[in-house]
Amino acid sequence: MYQIRTDLALETQEKMQEDNVELKGVRFLEERVDKNLTISTVVIETENGAKTMGKPKGTYITIEAGNMDEEDEDYHREISVQLAKIIKKLARIKRDEISVLVVGLGNREVTPDALGPRVVDNLFITRHILKEYGKYAFGQDKVNRISSIVPGVMAQTGMESLEIIKGIIRETKPELVIAVDALAARSTKRLNRTIQVTDTGINPGSGVGNHRHGLNEKSLGVPVISIGIPTVVDAATIVNDTMYNLVNAMTQSPAFSQLGNSLEELNDAEKYELIRELLSPNLNAMFVTPKDIDESVKRLSFTISEGLNIAFMGGGAQRAHVE
Amino acid sequence: MYQIRTDLALETQEKMQEDNVELKGVRFLEERVDKNLTISTVVIETENGAKTMGKPKGTYITIEAGNMDEEDEDYHREISVQLAKIIKKLARIKRDEISVLVVGLGNREVTPDALGPRVVDNLFITRHILKEYGKYAFGQDKVNRISSIVPGVMAQTGMESLEIIKGIIRETKPELVIAVDALAARSTKRLNRTIQVTDTGINPGSGVGNHRHGLNEKSLGVPVISIGIPTVVDAATIVNDTMYNLVNAMTQSPAFSQLGNSLEELNDAEKYELIRELLSPNLNAMFVTPKDIDESVKRLSFTISEGLNIAFMGGGAQRAHVE
Amino acid sequence: MYQIRTDLALETQEKMQEDNVELKGVRFLEERVDKNLTISTVVIETENGAKTMGKPKGTYITIEAGNMDEEDEDYHREISVQLAKIIKKLARIKRDEISVLVVGLGNREVTPDALGPRVVDNLFITRHILKEYGKYAFGQDKVNRISSIVPGVMAQTGMESLEIIKGIIRETKPELVIAVDALAARSTKRLNRTIQVTDTGINPGSGVGNHRHGLNEKSLGVPVISIGIPTVVDAATIVNDTMYNLVNAMTQSPAFSQLGNSLEELNDAEKYELIRELLSPNLNAMFVTPKDIDESVKRLSFTISEGLNIAFMGGGAQRAHVE
Amino acid sequence: MYQIRTDLALETQEKMQEDNVELKGVRFLEERVDKNLTISTVVIETENGAKTMGKPKGTYITIEAGNMDEEDEDYHREISVQLAKIIKKLARIKRDEISVLVVGLGNREVTPDALGPRVVDNLFITRHILKEYGKYAFGQDKVNRISSIVPGVMAQTGMESLEIIKGIIRETKPELVIAVDALAARSTKRLNRTIQVTDTGINPGSGVGNHRHGLNEKSLGVPVISIGIPTVVDAATIVNDTMYNLVNAMTQSPAFSQLGNSLEELNDAEKYELIRELLSPNLNAMFVTPKDIDESVKRLSFTISEGLNIAFMGGGAQRAHVE
Repeated sequence: MYQIRTDLALETQEKMQEDNVELKGVRFLEERVDKNLTISTVVIETENGAKTMGKPKGTYITIEAGNMDEEDEDYHREISVQLAKIIKKLARIKRDEISVLVVGLGNREVTPDALGPRVVDNLFITRHILKEYGKYAFGQDKVNRISSIVPGVMAQTGMESLEIIKGIIRETKPELVIAVDALAARSTKRLNRTIQVTDTGINPGSGVGNHRHGLNEKSLGVPVISIGIPTVVDAATIVNDTMYNLVNAMTQSPAFSQLGNSLEELNDAEKYELIRELLSPNLNAMFVTPKDIDESVKRLSFTISEGLNIAFMGGGAQRAHVE
Repeated sequence: MYQIRTDLALETQEKMQEDNVELKGVRFLEERVDKNLTISTVVIETENGAKTMGKPKGTYITIEAGNMDEEDEDYHREISVQLAKIIKKLARIKRDEISVLVVGLGNREVTPDALGPRVVDNLFITRHILKEYGKYAFGQDKVNRISSIVPGVMAQTGMESLEIIKGIIRETKPELVIAVDALAARSTKRLNRTIQVTDTGINPGSGVGNHRHGLNEKSLGVPVISIGIPTVVDAATIVNDTMYNLVNAMTQSPAFSQLGNSLEELNDAEKYELIRELLSPNLNAMFVTPKDIDESVKRLSFTISEGLNIAFMGGGAQRAHVE
Repeated sequence: MYQIRTDLALETQEKMQEDNVELKGVRFLEERVDKNLTISTVVIETENGAKTMGKPKGTYITIEAGNMDEEDEDYHREISVQLAKIIKKLARIKRDEISVLVVGLGNREVTPDALGPRVVDNLFITRHILKEYGKYAFGQDKVNRISSIVPGVMAQTGMESLEIIKGIIRETKPELVIAVDALAARSTKRLNRTIQVTDTGINPGSGVGNHRHGLNEKSLGVPVISIGIPTVVDAATIVNDTMYNLVNAMTQSPAFSQLGNSLEELNDAEKYELIRELLSPNLNAMFVTPKDIDESVKRLSFTISEGLNIAFMGGGAQRAHVE
Repeated sequence: MYQIRTDLALETQEKMQEDNVELKGVRFLEERVDKNLTISTVVIETENGAKTMGKPKGTYITIEAGNMDEEDEDYHREISVQLAKIIKKLARIKRDEISVLVVGLGNREVTPDALGPRVVDNLFITRHILKEYGKYAFGQDKVNRISSIVPGVMAQTGMESLEIIKGIIRETKPELVIAVDALAARSTKRLNRTIQVTDTGINPGSGVGNHRHGLNEKSLGVPVISIGIPTVVDAATIVNDTMYNLVNAMTQSPAFSQLGNSLEELNDAEKYELIRELLSPNLNAMFVTPKDIDESVKRLSFTISEGLNIAFMGGGAQRAHVE
């Protein structure tokens, strides 16, 4: 079977359906919130399901909105509100006051990879104020303890994000980690229009950059919710995918009936080989992204940080402090 | 004939050769400076040549160096020195003191398009010092009058670069414009390893962003030398190109002889149609770039700004002022 | 009389009052909008008034709000709304559709001087859309034509802002220029809490950096509204001012009666001389600014850009496009 | 005794001398390297000396160069070379291969506080390459293991730098920490012209921002070398200092003999009280910095990062990798 590279469980699920692969141990649910907003849930329930999907067991919730990266007076607050609900649901927070470390993954210097760092820029941070002045400073009974870090990428630090985050967790003992990262999609149509929230953390092969080791409950010792938006497609994926479609089109098109016949005789492995030979090895280190990615990342990072601010700082007086 | 999209005259020339197109009115010259450094010159001499090449008449000089974007103690000063020579040659400067406006085109917020703005960041600017203190400040007989501008992109300013530059030229009357811009190549292999210097300016369809109107001697009224490095490949180009290769491979491969026959029956227009149908329209607004583009742009912008500093400020005492 | 250095007409007016200088040809008006918001108007009506005030004839409107740079859910939209009203009033716009060039003065690389460039970052720019698609794109009858430029500072460009703006105006013919700039106040208490809007433009000696020549209706040929927030106090001013107060305190304090007597014998010129000798010449090139200036500039630039977006793009559907 | 606020041991030592305070337990040494470069060493040898100086026991080496922040072709490599020597000497590295964590303290968003983060931007990082490919990748027998982190400031992270660094050290076990930070001087004359290197780490009250808890061998468990350049003077210090000088001038000047007499009758506490009353409380949260601080920080950060690259990566082939 032809493997695709995507960080979106939704896309993997769609591909399985396309290929008529029977998905055991995977539940799927789609809810149309309004004409612009769809929320889908993929739950991978068994190890078998995880194997077929190529993703760890857990819940993957996807917010899709066609207008997500368009200009909007309040940065799509309606999406931020949905995001806040999903975060709270996935985090299964029972206590009223928890301490949360938000991690902005990715490389601030590469526009489509700057999503995580830029989300952190607009968070309302409370931990240091609570430590110094107590809840008094907020005029509230219950205030969550929010801290954040932008660890940078390995080429800048020489360290894996896991090492940095693990150390900080040991020292500051948050009860929950939120990891925000730019993702890679399979289809350019999904770019900057989809938010994926999962309780499985960040796993190897995810993201624009390469996080070698996963950031998840197992590696960090605390629950990890990850929030991501696909901002790139791998260059190899886009070429691969289009060529695969080309070969399939030829196979099916009556205009190319003779052609189709000979291609049909090729098995998937042979098709793959044919394609692979034509692929530049350079493509593996390349990505595809829209020309106006700067504006999308600016807006989307604000939508996510507002979602987090609503989830953890609520509305009203407290939100007044959101930068 | 299948059209390719590249800002590099060298790539167009190569494609013509590949396709056995006879190039009348175009001269080509290649000089191997050392094992790492090749300088090629394409001169488009006639309107006919310009038509075939899809580029205006003029001289296109290309510096190629495989290690250009690798780390280097002095940011590849050997390349800066070659660049300085080429700039001086193309600018045909006869007088000893000239006034030069360096224009850093592109979008500072999109990493591969930030080349122009970042080159300007490291230029040694003299115009204001000369105006206020005279040559005395430099302890030199002859000092060129260097000014610079980063006009931004249309989505930021609402104006075309041409309008901004034209206005500034009217007001400050430079004798020469140097326009620096990130380019689009056809092949990923050329990215961040090639500098093109031309006396034709920047022309429609060039660059990562879209400069609607050209910046050239005709539109600006002063000679325009443009310096560019390809930092992206258009997403459509990369997919198109690979698919074209796939179709050609099928045509030629004995293993697909039957297939080849049916494909051979397709003419270029039909092949193109077949490919076009599979191409996502999104691809037109997308580009392909390496994941470590931040480091390449940082280094390459320094190599170019040093080239300009050497060309216009010479060595010795003056260069001591280069930031 | 001891000269103070401030860009705020309000501070000059206060100082005159303090010193019991009779202000002929200057009108003053104060309006308390609510407990947090005061709007003051200084109108310099005669050349004599201009001479006494050391500022050109015209209207200077100041919005003061103690909480202006504090965190706020919607970036103090109430202030943006007031600002929009003042801009429209001062600009005396009669026609329904005008073309406006917004100029973001200052140095993006120096935090307190980055106000102008950062305001421009969040403006809703329409000129290029109107030119390409017409009003149709906005679904409106009347759409103002907004363009913007960040000219940079002389050390970066070698050109004066005036030269750059003048050229762009000649080419693009806006009917109104809005110049946004960081200002210098006399008192640290005013920093980041005061917006000054005037119809006199930007004049020599204004701003954090040094705009050598004024940007005003006379130099540019179109009306110029300038909007500024004091983000710094000149280091010389702060030292000067405190020392002046010290000398005055000594003069008046009964505890230092003997001292007072000898100081009283000094005239203003002698006092000034005494102070000047102690002042480091370095101080002239230095400024004083709060440690959290990054957060203030971030918030305040948003408050101003929203004011401009409301003034020129109105509310409702159009505002939906504000980034 | 009137307390001054400076991070430079050299300035404290000078002040003591000025005030004729006998400095027991403190050694001082000055070496004139050439006409532009002076290296001073203050060694605080006893707890008593530490108390008098208000700084922990240890060695403070200061490089002074009048032209340090001026433009220079190779970013004052001669200073980088001296810095490398001093680092190696203070670090007392005996083994040939050590692992070093470089910490870039301060706030990247506030220009004079961005020194630490910007130094880290230009470091040659090796740890991840060594881990993945071994020394083979460098073609060397001995390669130091360099990693780095920019922890951000408390307002951004909600955490103290100490917590972040401590956690990372536990996880990655470096043998040496280098902390780079912007400092506060007493005199504007020292700004951007002085590098202080100490083996005492960073201690409370240091820097532009406020590091609440020290980063030193005691708190981190590994030796800490700190490198700093004064980029600001506290606003309170500058006003205080000038007023103190004013009062002293009055005391001594024959022209103010009568005045002098009455002032002489004031003791230091009374003088201080007189001054304090005139000081705005705002001043404590403010700093003084030069208007061209962006250019100085850009250049100086390069000088320091080159010093570190030379110290840890030597010259020759390896340095070829320095970005």
